[in-house]
Amino acid sequence: MSEYIEPIERLAEQFRRLPGVGKKSAVRMAFAVLDLPEEDAKSFSDAILEAKRSVRLCSVCGNMTDGDVCAVCRDEDRDRSVICVVEDSRDVIALERVREYNGLYHVLGGVISPLAGVAPSDLTIDMLLRRVSDGTVKEVIIATNPTVEGETTAMYISKLLSPLGIKTSRLAYGIPVGGDLEYADEVTLNRAIEGRREM
Amino acid sequence: MSEYIEPIERLAEQFRRLPGVGKKSAVRMAFAVLDLPEEDAKSFSDAILEAKRSVRLCSVCGNMTDGDVCAVCRDEDRDRSVICVVEDSRDVIALERVREYNGLYHVLGGVISPLAGVAPSDLTIDMLLRRVSDGTVKEVIIATNPTVEGETTAMYISKLLSPLGIKTSRLAYGIPVGGDLEYADEVTLNRAIEGRREM
Repeated sequence: MSEYIEPIERLAEQFRRLPGVGKKSAVRMAFAVLDLPEEDAKSFSDAILEAKRSVRLCSVCGNMTDGDVCAVCRDEDRDRSVICVVEDSRDVIALERVREYNGLYHVLGGVISPLAGVAPSDLTIDMLLRRVSDGTVKEVIIATNPTVEGETTAMYISKLLSPLGIKTSRLAYGIPVGGDLEYADEVTLNRAIEGRREM
Repeated sequence: MSEYIEPIERLAEQFRRLPGVGKKSAVRMAFAVLDLPEEDAKSFSDAILEAKRSVRLCSVCGNMTDGDVCAVCRDEDRDRSVICVVEDSRDVIALERVREYNGLYHVLGGVISPLAGVAPSDLTIDMLLRRVSDGTVKEVIIATNPTVEGETTAMYISKLLSPLGIKTSRLAYGIPVGGDLEYADEVTLNRAIEGRREM
């Protein structure tokens, strides 16, 4: 037996699928939609369909784009000798925010995970190998997340690239800036010691 | 200059309109929608339009319903001699959750608020007066929120009803159950003392 009438219940259920939305928030959101003018509710509904319809993967690097090739790959000023390999388009955005890196990207679309049934062939690894085959690319920076799956994927890609004479590197591990030694977990601390640099 | 591509930015903007959703959450939600299968994104979009289209106000009490008359008004077992007046349909749901009250409701659709430009004629007060005019209703419980506007509205309605010989009452004020005297504000505490009951 539901507390709310059917259409509200159904809409709240949709909001509950979103990250960080519990039952109460979902209901509040559903009511907020009902409070919107007809026109605005229509725009909301359309924005969902439109995003889903128009966002596709860049045919070169697998990044999200609304065209055929993404903005980074189109940019003539980018250094085409370096490719940074990430799991997800969101990682591209995070790295772009830093305004430090000027190379290209390659979005894997996930990580190798036997438990979740993700095999190397489910990722864009083949595409990456084709990209590096013409000799333009000198270095591949592997920036998968520091998780077991991320590490495995990094290792896997690095093993495929090394026979091709391409330099592969991995993002540095360590204490985050502004972090506190006291609260850093042991693995991170261990990596920070291993990766220490001369001053 | 936006960090995200247009369709994602537009969708995130829509999510930002919802209560409790900031910029970061909105973007996470937009990406979550992109991760949904085509089919599910369509259902999401449809649920918004459908809720907006099918939810209307009960022609008797002003409560939200997907039919012509709401479930409470349709229910034959309800005590038709008592009407509880609330601001909003959400208040009906809150009161129904208690499973104590067995009368009918009347949803005002807001409160009198000169500042926000809401006059008595913008509310369903006329409808309430027509409902109580046939003599079936013996008591009207005014359950507007304990805010300045809620109080004003309660007072206004009570003044209209008293010449008709209908008993009007107001929900009790006091310390919430499980609350702490130490943290109760002075107005609430004052009302709790005023409304004290013999044991």
